[in-house]
Amino acid sequence: MERITSAQNAKVKRVKELLAQSKARRRAGEFVCEGRRLCEEIPPELIREVWMSESFAERERDLPEDVRTFVVPDSLFRSVSDTAGPQGMLAVVRMPEQARSGAGPDPCAEQAGPEPRVILMLEGLQDPGNLGTIFRTAEAAGVGEIVMDRGCADVFSPKVVRATMGSVFRVPFSICEDLPALAASMVARGRKVFAACLGAETDYRDADFTGDCAILIGNEGNGLTEAALSAATERVIIPMQGEIESLNASVAAALLMYEAGRHAAG
Amino acid sequence: MERITSAQNAKVKRVKELLAQSKARRRAGEFVCEGRRLCEEIPPELIREVWMSESFAERERDLPEDVRTFVVPDSLFRSVSDTAGPQGMLAVVRMPEQARSGAGPDPCAEQAGPEPRVILMLEGLQDPGNLGTIFRTAEAAGVGEIVMDRGCADVFSPKVVRATMGSVFRVPFSICEDLPALAASMVARGRKVFAACLGAETDYRDADFTGDCAILIGNEGNGLTEAALSAATERVIIPMQGEIESLNASVAAALLMYEAGRHAAG
Repeated sequence: MERITSAQNAKVKRVKELLAQSKARRRAGEFVCEGRRLCEEIPPELIREVWMSESFAERERDLPEDVRTFVVPDSLFRSVSDTAGPQGMLAVVRMPEQARSGAGPDPCAEQAGPEPRVILMLEGLQDPGNLGTIFRTAEAAGVGEIVMDRGCADVFSPKVVRATMGSVFRVPFSICEDLPALAASMVARGRKVFAACLGAETDYRDADFTGDCAILIGNEGNGLTEAALSAATERVIIPMQGEIESLNASVAAALLMYEAGRHAAG
Repeated sequence: MERITSAQNAKVKRVKELLAQSKARRRAGEFVCEGRRLCEEIPPELIREVWMSESFAERERDLPEDVRTFVVPDSLFRSVSDTAGPQGMLAVVRMPEQARSGAGPDPCAEQAGPEPRVILMLEGLQDPGNLGTIFRTAEAAGVGEIVMDRGCADVFSPKVVRATMGSVFRVPFSICEDLPALAASMVARGRKVFAACLGAETDYRDADFTGDCAILIGNEGNGLTEAALSAATERVIIPMQGEIESLNASVAAALLMYEAGRHAAG
């Protein structure tokens, strides 16, 4: 256990950078998890450092062993933290292998195990809270893999990581350079690809999600690009009453993922 | 159109208060809507004042008529605004009648029109983003009324209003002093009341949502109170795979509301 008291300490500055900058995270291949609950979800082999506020360290009985641990004054911890009311614990975490390599592997082509039955594909999903919630829901709905394009929010930003509630460590995911091309290659291999689209005519509850499928969800404001829509085998709409123009992206994704799960036995 | 340039102006201070304090909103019977899109959703009879930044007013061709309008320097608008990158337009809005009266009416007992088929009841829902998203989804799913207890976030806080995307003006809602008692009175009148509950045995997809029903959703961290659970006619669970302990409240509400909508014809 090492004590650090200066905000000018290089290690302190590095944690701040990892919290604030997507670039710093990519360069280091590391990111930060804040809060005790979230830290407990981290696979032990990925934990690089644990940081605690003094008062948290005093309260804590089971201090981590075999991990480099830093203790800092409460005020310093607050100045580092990304949250308004920090608990006093964070971990510096190594990114999983596929995320560090930049472009993730094609989830279907290069995967060692069996192909996942349901794949979620996200295009330009920019809201960190939405993205994190979608990870959380995807795990619960039994989605086997999430593929994102470069237009999506950074999965390793503190807001996204927090909103995943740990799912970021459990749902396989990858970043894809060309989402429409990947969708097309999935179709070529016999996978159904459903695009959520406001202009669609098929009610999502009437779509046939049996067999291997992928679900395409687009940007919060603009939806899917023409290229992504064209790659899909079917466009589906979630019917809306009232004067609502669209659903929240994480709500739309949840309804479609659970609908696909419904057909698992079919 | 009146110009105000001082941050010390009493009217400016009042708008800030309406944005920041639930108490100030209740006392005045007014709240604030920010952003052009949201302002367009306000029923005209509820608009009290429109505020614009100078640059917004210059760009704007259709300046509002018959409404008291204030124009302020951009820097002053930014200091008033609740958002990080304000568009430059907000409105001071009168609360709908039932919300101003404090305790809303029993949606079943005192309503003039026909009873809504599906009622959503929220207990202790504290996250403003969740609450707003639930309003938005409720409108889309055809929910006829939302009832909240006093433990819910303030519907008229800027974050909630924003997340509703205007549904706050279209979905009837009320605040209830005793949610379990209201649920019990609904049951006594023959309405089914479904409680979302992690310990339930009935899969929500197997529940019978036909006929008049209510859906009870509890606090993000603790779920429903025992009193609310006891008032329900049936407890339902949304099955979850993986190691997820619970779904986001707005996601759980969405799945249940759309499930109830599915049975509209039944």
